[in-house]
Amino acid sequence: MTTATAYSQLAQLFARLHRFSHLGAIAGWDQAAMMPPKGNDARAAAQAELGVLMHGLITDSKLPTLLSQAEQEDLSEMARANLGEMRREWRMANCLPSALVEAKTLASARCEHAWRSQRAANDWPGFLQNFREVVRLAREEGRLLGEQNGLSVYDAQMDKYEPGITSAQVERIFTEVKSWLPDLIAQVRDQQAKVPVPVPQGPFSVEKQRALGLEVMRLLGFDFDAGRLDVSLHPFCGGVPEDVRITTRYREDDFVQSLMGIVHETGHARYEQNLPRDWLEQPVGRARSMGIHESQSLSFEMQLGRSRGFLQLIAPLIQRQFGPDPALSADNLALLYTRVQPGLIRVDADELCYPAHIILRFEIERALMNGDIEAEDVPALWDEKMQSYLGLDTRGNYRDGCLQDIHWTDSFGYFPSYTLGAMCAAQYFACLRSSTPDLDRQIAAGNLQPVFDWLGNHIWRQGSRWSTDELLRRATGESLNPAHYRAHLEARYLA
Amino acid sequence: MTTATAYSQLAQLFARLHRFSHLGAIAGWDQAAMMPPKGNDARAAAQAELGVLMHGLITDSKLPTLLSQAEQEDLSEMARANLGEMRREWRMANCLPSALVEAKTLASARCEHAWRSQRAANDWPGFLQNFREVVRLAREEGRLLGEQNGLSVYDAQMDKYEPGITSAQVERIFTEVKSWLPDLIAQVRDQQAKVPVPVPQGPFSVEKQRALGLEVMRLLGFDFDAGRLDVSLHPFCGGVPEDVRITTRYREDDFVQSLMGIVHETGHARYEQNLPRDWLEQPVGRARSMGIHESQSLSFEMQLGRSRGFLQLIAPLIQRQFGPDPALSADNLALLYTRVQPGLIRVDADELCYPAHIILRFEIERALMNGDIEAEDVPALWDEKMQSYLGLDTRGNYRDGCLQDIHWTDSFGYFPSYTLGAMCAAQYFACLRSSTPDLDRQIAAGNLQPVFDWLGNHIWRQGSRWSTDELLRRATGESLNPAHYRAHLEARYLA
Ligand SMILES: [Zn+2]
Ligand SMILES: [Zn+2]
Repeated sequence: MTTATAYSQLAQLFARLHRFSHLGAIAGWDQAAMMPPKGNDARAAAQAELGVLMHGLITDSKLPTLLSQAEQEDLSEMARANLGEMRREWRMANCLPSALVEAKTLASARCEHAWRSQRAANDWPGFLQNFREVVRLAREEGRLLGEQNGLSVYDAQMDKYEPGITSAQVERIFTEVKSWLPDLIAQVRDQQAKVPVPVPQGPFSVEKQRALGLEVMRLLGFDFDAGRLDVSLHPFCGGVPEDVRITTRYREDDFVQSLMGIVHETGHARYEQNLPRDWLEQPVGRARSMGIHESQSLSFEMQLGRSRGFLQLIAPLIQRQFGPDPALSADNLALLYTRVQPGLIRVDADELCYPAHIILRFEIERALMNGDIEAEDVPALWDEKMQSYLGLDTRGNYRDGCLQDIHWTDSFGYFPSYTLGAMCAAQYFACLRSSTPDLDRQIAAGNLQPVFDWLGNHIWRQGSRWSTDELLRRATGESLNPAHYRAHLEARYLA
Repeated sequence: MTTATAYSQLAQLFARLHRFSHLGAIAGWDQAAMMPPKGNDARAAAQAELGVLMHGLITDSKLPTLLSQAEQEDLSEMARANLGEMRREWRMANCLPSALVEAKTLASARCEHAWRSQRAANDWPGFLQNFREVVRLAREEGRLLGEQNGLSVYDAQMDKYEPGITSAQVERIFTEVKSWLPDLIAQVRDQQAKVPVPVPQGPFSVEKQRALGLEVMRLLGFDFDAGRLDVSLHPFCGGVPEDVRITTRYREDDFVQSLMGIVHETGHARYEQNLPRDWLEQPVGRARSMGIHESQSLSFEMQLGRSRGFLQLIAPLIQRQFGPDPALSADNLALLYTRVQPGLIRVDADELCYPAHIILRFEIERALMNGDIEAEDVPALWDEKMQSYLGLDTRGNYRDGCLQDIHWTDSFGYFPSYTLGAMCAAQYFACLRSSTPDLDRQIAAGNLQPVFDWLGNHIWRQGSRWSTDELLRRATGESLNPAHYRAHLEARYLA
């Protein structure tokens, strides 16, 4: 009888974890898209039990030895990359004392629960009472995570979502963006003020919106034999790579947001649907990072979905559902989908104002994690930065200010991924356009294959084989370069 | 520090099992009602992994000691009943060697997979090749299960679904039924031949059928905050007691079957939705047995749902959806829902012919398990009994004969539960009618509360507190008595 290699034992363990997480993912999708309210407590108990089980498996005392042994074994390049991801997951799960994990879960749950009513009540002082403890525990978590990697508290938090990136890099990039973004916004607003945009008049029936959404998903190559479109309060892409569940929500008075939301989630979905099939049960078979995931949704939504070619392609589909309204012409859709209007709410922000919301949050959460400010300092900083980046007054309006996002009740370091994703997407398309000069013409003609091929080869099928930086360099020939992002925005908005 | 009692340790373990089974149940519902085809392999792998986990928990070597210790502890009556159910589950999971479990799983999967095409191809010889092994392993399983309880092979198989019942009892009951059923069918057919029944003409849109189904579920007290109605190929009641998922399927040319199917599944659902809330995570909080479960669906479908009062109540709802067609009057619906027409297929059988299908299967599967016949003898016996009980010729028609059901690819001893359930339902309503003489008038007036109260008090909220026989005696004052079933059928069909 031959002894199983350490690596194969690990692979078996991670396959088990993958199968258990499948059940958690489907139950999570169900909870958001299907579950009636009284199912909640039993579902939460079931998910918690699964969490305990999986935590127990990944903190098994045999793992450190197996990981070390496997590192000595003769492995294929892909297996070695897989082993690296295994060690990463093991480290994340094992460097925290369980008392801290429990305290954090409890404090976050309490803070989030209270936030749901405190936000509506504009109650910052009430929120602050729970938030202080959340900040304290997150700093402690970041300190312990950072000790393992030699990272600062904030960098360690960010590393959970965007392994390998540092806040110094992000700061350099964001500082550069800040140097031109406010001017660009002002200039574009100036131009757009002269151009009136007819707004399509509803009602747009949910049934027709859904039919349109499905048609566009089909155009975008979504595999309906391996996924679904449903409805949830907060749109997301969930399920498992073998069976991807995306959601949207419909408003009868406006189809524009739901449609572009579907394009966005379809970008996430195609990444999942095209991860390397032979490695799906292993860590290396997963999506690279939150930023790279967002770069896929934003490639679809911002690069492809709002391009002139694409709007020319889908305008007839839209008009077939909602009638031959001139407000539904490709020209007018282009105006609608590029309208710039600074506002208080991140999730409603347009493409151009969005990075301002992210930079603001990055700067505040980094200062907060690294101890440069305290929880009570957040609103004043928020007001100052909103004024400076978007020219908006948020004083006293916590509800639409620092209380608007759920993220900080539970996590810090996630926000940069949104804008890093947008930048990566611009970089991909710069590359793709230079190798396919007639890309827009092909898109308008309904041939999206060049987009799918490029993303499929360079991103989707790579899984977690490379670090984010290596992935980018292999795909585009350079590390993240915000010049492409700026060029994209200027080309679209100053044209 | 106090030591946890053995009972409390067991209760904790069974709560964990309950929470894991929650995930399995939701994933199972999703698989049937939502999952796209390419999700299948990953789902099967995830469910299998969960099965291995749960099997490992219930075969933990500490359990025999804990069970014995707990039996010596001071327990409430309900806890003692719970302990009895724990021991039962433990015994079922532990008396089989894992090699047999694996071999059985494999043989069943192979047999079922092949059956899907063999049935369509009418290929009995092909089926027989796999079926022999299924029978051999089921006999071995029954022998081992029976050794534990002093039961025959078939009784041990039946005990899995209907604990405490013996095939001798079932045979006595079924022999009695056989003595009057064929004559009754003939007599009813004779009568009905003189009465033409106008058939409602479709199409009946799926949307309207669904609206009607939801309305009827509401009438029947289904709690939509704790459950859903969806569509699947084979209608079922799934999910978890806290969140019950029922399904139906729609045909545009006929709403009658789907509607009564919804009534049936709602009966299952209300049982689940009203199991004892404080014990839901424990074995004693579950439904008593398959037969008792079916007695709830058949109380709704056959006793309540096809009663004149109920048809009077829902006829206006039906006409509101589908127009004032005289074929949709309560009188005509009563004729439609009591039409008797012997046919080859069990799942399409009417109320009166259904028991003949069950008795035939019971007699064959019992002989097969006890070694009185071999797998190859099934078709000849089938032909003979179909001729004798329903006067139908099935020779050479395996597809609509012994190949029609999926059950035997995997299990034996389940079929009697269908008819035992129908008999229990008749017995409940005999009891309920004698305590509520104006029941039908109340039903027609829309007051179904007497039905819900009776079933709720006597069955739903009892969970698995009593044996099936004790449950029946406490509810109705006597053990299962098929006289009520006969009286019900004669009252309905010879009126
Ligand atoms: Zn996204
Ligand atoms: Zn049933």
